[in-house]
Amino acid sequence: MTELRTLKVALLGCGNVGAQVARILLDDADMLASRAGARLELAGIAVRNLDAPREVELPRALFTTDAETLVKDADLVIELMGGIEPARTLILTAMQNGACVVTGNKALVAKDGPTLHEEADRAGVQLSYEAAVAGAIPILRPIRDSLSGDRITRVLGIVNGTTNFILDQMDSTGAQFADALAEAQRLGYAEADPTADVEGYDAASKAAILASLSFHTRFSLADVYCEGISAVTAADIAAAKDAGFVIKLLAIAEKLGAGGRETGTETSRETGTETAAGDTGVSVRVHPTLLPREHPLAAVHGAFNAVFIEAENAGELMFYGQGAGGKPTASAIMGDLVSAARSIVLGGPGRAETTTGKVVALPVTAAVTSYYIGLDVADQPGVLAKIARLFAEHGVSIEIMRQTIHRDADSKIESAELRIVTHRASEAALAATVEAVKGLDVINSVTSVLRVEGV
Amino acid sequence: MTELRTLKVALLGCGNVGAQVARILLDDADMLASRAGARLELAGIAVRNLDAPREVELPRALFTTDAETLVKDADLVIELMGGIEPARTLILTAMQNGACVVTGNKALVAKDGPTLHEEADRAGVQLSYEAAVAGAIPILRPIRDSLSGDRITRVLGIVNGTTNFILDQMDSTGAQFADALAEAQRLGYAEADPTADVEGYDAASKAAILASLSFHTRFSLADVYCEGISAVTAADIAAAKDAGFVIKLLAIAEKLGAGGRETGTETSRETGTETAAGDTGVSVRVHPTLLPREHPLAAVHGAFNAVFIEAENAGELMFYGQGAGGKPTASAIMGDLVSAARSIVLGGPGRAETTTGKVVALPVTAAVTSYYIGLDVADQPGVLAKIARLFAEHGVSIEIMRQTIHRDADSKIESAELRIVTHRASEAALAATVEAVKGLDVINSVTSVLRVEGV
Repeated sequence: MTELRTLKVALLGCGNVGAQVARILLDDADMLASRAGARLELAGIAVRNLDAPREVELPRALFTTDAETLVKDADLVIELMGGIEPARTLILTAMQNGACVVTGNKALVAKDGPTLHEEADRAGVQLSYEAAVAGAIPILRPIRDSLSGDRITRVLGIVNGTTNFILDQMDSTGAQFADALAEAQRLGYAEADPTADVEGYDAASKAAILASLSFHTRFSLADVYCEGISAVTAADIAAAKDAGFVIKLLAIAEKLGAGGRETGTETSRETGTETAAGDTGVSVRVHPTLLPREHPLAAVHGAFNAVFIEAENAGELMFYGQGAGGKPTASAIMGDLVSAARSIVLGGPGRAETTTGKVVALPVTAAVTSYYIGLDVADQPGVLAKIARLFAEHGVSIEIMRQTIHRDADSKIESAELRIVTHRASEAALAATVEAVKGLDVINSVTSVLRVEGV
Repeated sequence: MTELRTLKVALLGCGNVGAQVARILLDDADMLASRAGARLELAGIAVRNLDAPREVELPRALFTTDAETLVKDADLVIELMGGIEPARTLILTAMQNGACVVTGNKALVAKDGPTLHEEADRAGVQLSYEAAVAGAIPILRPIRDSLSGDRITRVLGIVNGTTNFILDQMDSTGAQFADALAEAQRLGYAEADPTADVEGYDAASKAAILASLSFHTRFSLADVYCEGISAVTAADIAAAKDAGFVIKLLAIAEKLGAGGRETGTETSRETGTETAAGDTGVSVRVHPTLLPREHPLAAVHGAFNAVFIEAENAGELMFYGQGAGGKPTASAIMGDLVSAARSIVLGGPGRAETTTGKVVALPVTAAVTSYYIGLDVADQPGVLAKIARLFAEHGVSIEIMRQTIHRDADSKIESAELRIVTHRASEAALAATVEAVKGLDVINSVTSVLRVEGV
């Protein structure tokens, strides 16, 4: 083999993913050299505690607690510490010293992406973070490069394995949320404190990143409407199932309104970009969502992730794979690392993201969606007519209305249940309709309100 | 907007895809400029017949029959003529004159990829062909870049929409092949002469390209074993369905044997890379295949395409979308074009593919797979035992054996049908077993022999 130059790699953090990255760098050095066109030398691993147990046996001499010195002498820096600081400062230091940076830190990229990208541009280095969204699934690079000549109109993503596992358990076993969560914790799919996953915060970070790349602008976490799955009940799941739907926690980013050529009824129908009250921009949100069982995302089970993309010319695309775990996430990190190394070897500043910066993040009230509404209603003549009229008054059109009568052993009516799926309407109109429905004298209670996509 | 440089784009061919590419270049010039960092000027469209009808209305002045002159003055050349010549010579001329080339020509890349890549390397230009495999689906760039730090062990692709549509029709309606083909032709999913699609040649070109990128070497069409779907019967489909399988035409590329670190029973089980008679290399093949109905590829319906990838660290990935059609294929072309333009603007030779050139293409007899075998058997005591013994003698282990007795109106046995699914074994052992089964006196006929994947 001809003499290849050597690039120094600094690894920050040695948890689940970091340990696998170190293993690959050490064990697959020859393969990586042939792929990158340079030898990738693991110069050191910065950790907080030198004596912490590791998933992989690694040479003790590689470890250091002095991350800053390590970073300043590296050609390539892999940041897997998580959290905002000191990760942020170390990444900025690395770039200022001319290193390309690969990170899996979704929280940091979602919170402070613009600062990181500005520094990368100024320093002329690559910043890549494929591992930050949907683990092993190549999704950011396809959006950035493969779809660079197309217009994405909508992104629907199952980007949190914990919540998908819980919802999948509830769907297949009829379990309540708390029991499914306990099972997920027992199997290691959910953490002891599951808040970040079940309340949707993790998915919200990923939604901000997906939306930024898809719509060529920079959205931050603050632009994302977020609603988790802790309020989803076994009854919601059962009712959805009965109506041919499955409930998924989706990260959604979609263009709304007259965003250039997407106006007009015809394109609207194709791309789902109806205008809600004249708003123009991008709606970025995370919430439990009903999907028809035949939708490709409905078949994504367990802890798997998938991202469904609609683009003007490409049509519908889906990317599916493992969204977490040491090895899968390490695969994404290594892909970014080899790509960054190649561009160092070949010269040139590498591929920058493009941003137009003209896209507005819309509040969730501007979104256009369908609702599934479950109602416990009085069994009186004219109930359906009353409810239907109220929907019409609010400009919300009903697609499906189904009444189920529950009787006791003597065939006496115990309760009547009404399930409604609306056509697409603005969030504002739908919310107002639900409020008004609650005030009707024939309504005992509103048992569930969930958004529907993919119809 | 700041003054951007202008890059001249030459378009060769103006059929289905070419017309959409021209439309996007003309209509979306500002968007493309912001994405590419340069204005992309459509300098001309080379066609054989200036007066042929086009799908999109385009300025007459753009058309020329002089492809060579057009190509010599371009910064970027898009080749969509198809076929080997004159496409090949024009692409080589373009690269020799310093142009980056984007092509959707799978036949040419599969047949003569090495020549094209050598010329691209010599000239220091980019050669990209995302549109050549699976239309709009970003699959080649993810394999090349995103998985560059991982080892792909197997690729299973539904890469031909025509055959997937036909098999899907047969599966859902019970139609025979000829009727499903006629329906596909009526709907425009199959051509008047459907040979290239139904006999698997189109899929074979794509298999060669997928295998080359996945295993970092250059396979050509001659390395691909190819079997089409014209022999698949309604009875095969029904029997498969009954046993919980669906029949798909798959393009398969998989690593076999001791390919470095993949040896050992544990990894073999994980990655399906069992050794067949000590062979080491890659098996590339196209044939009708049984897939369990719960396999992600089984849910790919109609003319959609999908590629399922297994990698050592990433695990299972799937990429899904539209595999053909003017707009979807144009999306892939435009992604390559914008990426090539960016690397011209940013400087540097762009990203090269990496090849190690050490990988051997194995004959189909070296493949390790499962068989589904349908037998019409005599209804005699001991038939099952005889057949089971014969399988055992050939070293083929049976996973499922199911006998169905068909009776006439008087409950007299008319025929007995035996369905066998084997465990994974070498093609050679399976073929020998089938031959031997045919010689058994208790066998009336072998009704179907199909390969099984995804179990």
